[in-house]
Amino acid sequence: MDNFSFCTPTRYVFGHEAECKAATLCHEAGWKHVMIVYGGQSAIRSGLLDRVRKSLGDTGITVTELGGVKPNPTDDKVYDGIALGREAGVDALLAVGGGSVIDTAKAIAAGILYEGDFWDFYCGKSTVEKVLPLGVILTIPAAGSEGSGNSVITRLDGLRKLSLRTDTELRPKFACLNPELTYTLPPYQTASGIADMMVHIMERYFTLTEGVEVTDRLCEGLLKAIIAEAPKVMAEPENYDARANIMWSGTLAHNGICGCGRREDWASHFIEHELSALYNVTHGAGLAVITPAWMSYVGERRPAKVAQFARRVFDVTENDDSKAAMEGIRLLREFFHSIGLPVSMKELGIENPDIEKLVGKLHENKGPKIGGYLSLEAKDTEAIFNLAR
Amino acid sequence: MDNFSFCTPTRYVFGHEAECKAATLCHEAGWKHVMIVYGGQSAIRSGLLDRVRKSLGDTGITVTELGGVKPNPTDDKVYDGIALGREAGVDALLAVGGGSVIDTAKAIAAGILYEGDFWDFYCGKSTVEKVLPLGVILTIPAAGSEGSGNSVITRLDGLRKLSLRTDTELRPKFACLNPELTYTLPPYQTASGIADMMVHIMERYFTLTEGVEVTDRLCEGLLKAIIAEAPKVMAEPENYDARANIMWSGTLAHNGICGCGRREDWASHFIEHELSALYNVTHGAGLAVITPAWMSYVGERRPAKVAQFARRVFDVTENDDSKAAMEGIRLLREFFHSIGLPVSMKELGIENPDIEKLVGKLHENKGPKIGGYLSLEAKDTEAIFNLAR
Repeated sequence: MDNFSFCTPTRYVFGHEAECKAATLCHEAGWKHVMIVYGGQSAIRSGLLDRVRKSLGDTGITVTELGGVKPNPTDDKVYDGIALGREAGVDALLAVGGGSVIDTAKAIAAGILYEGDFWDFYCGKSTVEKVLPLGVILTIPAAGSEGSGNSVITRLDGLRKLSLRTDTELRPKFACLNPELTYTLPPYQTASGIADMMVHIMERYFTLTEGVEVTDRLCEGLLKAIIAEAPKVMAEPENYDARANIMWSGTLAHNGICGCGRREDWASHFIEHELSALYNVTHGAGLAVITPAWMSYVGERRPAKVAQFARRVFDVTENDDSKAAMEGIRLLREFFHSIGLPVSMKELGIENPDIEKLVGKLHENKGPKIGGYLSLEAKDTEAIFNLAR
Repeated sequence: MDNFSFCTPTRYVFGHEAECKAATLCHEAGWKHVMIVYGGQSAIRSGLLDRVRKSLGDTGITVTELGGVKPNPTDDKVYDGIALGREAGVDALLAVGGGSVIDTAKAIAAGILYEGDFWDFYCGKSTVEKVLPLGVILTIPAAGSEGSGNSVITRLDGLRKLSLRTDTELRPKFACLNPELTYTLPPYQTASGIADMMVHIMERYFTLTEGVEVTDRLCEGLLKAIIAEAPKVMAEPENYDARANIMWSGTLAHNGICGCGRREDWASHFIEHELSALYNVTHGAGLAVITPAWMSYVGERRPAKVAQFARRVFDVTENDDSKAAMEGIRLLREFFHSIGLPVSMKELGIENPDIEKLVGKLHENKGPKIGGYLSLEAKDTEAIFNLAR
């Protein structure tokens, strides 16, 4: 096991009417002027935004609003938010939505107190120090941003999708998680969220670090639970307990508990980021395509952990590591299919992927080598894109 | 799944030389005068205390010391610490030891700023509000107090062993966990710690709350990992990775992550507290005796979850719930025996337990009914003590 330092100070308020506690949490934190960040029409149509706005007003908090955040969020909205927040003099942010909304709010929280360009944090030119505090009302369980210190933003100029990782600076002060708010999510978005959280666990699971049995077992347990609950939410969108299990899994998948003391991988995410930057596909659906392809490639070359995954998560009984690994990948693809996800670029609607461009962008953005479980150069990532066609 | 509010702000600094970071953590927190709380000779003999003292001094922090905390810690030491801390004017505490030391430090942290008797918090007369901050250097993985907001103290007058539970008030600001510091733990203490952490998980696992698959799987995964790593630490006390897995399990077993969204049980702990209060046995060893007896009693009356435990933790394949439950309990007792723990009061050295007194004290301290998975009255707890003879 590797050394680690781990701190998750976010307060999780989970359950029925959790969103109703946001105003009190803002008030108790001493926030006076809050910028609500949100996405499209669903938060308006459902009445959620109205309720949040009113409850903040009732506690005497001034509200400024930034709507219209889109999936695969882009830098233009961040610049808008920074300008708006500075002008209005907000002292905190409340993200009402999923990962894109939260990641945008985090970028604004970091950028608003920074003299330079917020993008400096994402391309590694500068380190986050002072940020505005942030709260979350989660409506899409997927990205896990409600419990993480990370944020992913796409730069429109050049289509670079980059992530910023902080220790605790950008972890939300609180996250309100009401599974009922996810009842109306379209099936494809529900399924994509499930793939996203599963791959967040798998990026940490696939490691060469030895002696990490506890964290292996946590990862496997979470994956088994997600695989058991996923068919229930697909069949019965208003099954509270199934929605609750999926929602809580999404947070635990990415708040860091699955990665303590081990080198992580993240190749699948890096590869998928190019796919969604170039073709604007749903991130989780992109992962359902890329991750099994990545597993096939690494499973042929380094089967041990893929075989452990197959045996412990999918109860594969095959003794040979290579065969067990391949069977595990087959079952993973079958599972993704069963909840309505694509497992090839073709199924994702990309008939003729520009693999040369994807590989070029990938290594331009992430360097000549990516991945912790197996180090991948351009020739490897090209093969993986081809396996995913 | 039940509603919950969950926050674990403790920073875990884990790995080689983790204890060397304590002084920096105290300094960064702005602490000027720290009371080091410790136990017996081992922290002195090993040189750990000298190193901690020196590193605090090097960063300009004034040190006051309170040694001599004993297992099953008692109120007299807490009163000493409160008086000493007030006189010296300490502004923070650093516990160097295991659960008894940490629990004593927590009681002092709560009592020192309170005008009344600190015992008010433990017997429910008053609620903790203002506390001194607390750091931990852990030397015994068992009680999980390094990550919890709880503390257990025994009142000498009347032998009442009571627990205080707080949300975040008494959670340590940081906990330094170096598995190497546990190399020299005697085998019996290592094994007792393992039983303690397993039962911390099981007290949360056994619930009637439905729809908690994620947390069930986390509990089962942690238990499986502990059962895999325990024989290694017993056979090779200096196996770093095995010690690391056991140490991290002990923290996760009790920081609350295993109990989110579910009613907990705690009958085994309440029952065992009477045993250690009356016969001063090692808490974890007492649990190895009491918990399987409790499981036998509840497994006969409500076998479902005990059967799930048997199947998922011990891979029992029996289809009948009652039979599966009994087989799981047999395997748990076999496991405790295999690491050198007693599974009966006789093996624990209590030949003629005063069961009438134990039952009387138990319900005097904890009320007429205890337990969440199965509600137990005096006739039930008497039967459990008899099953544990």
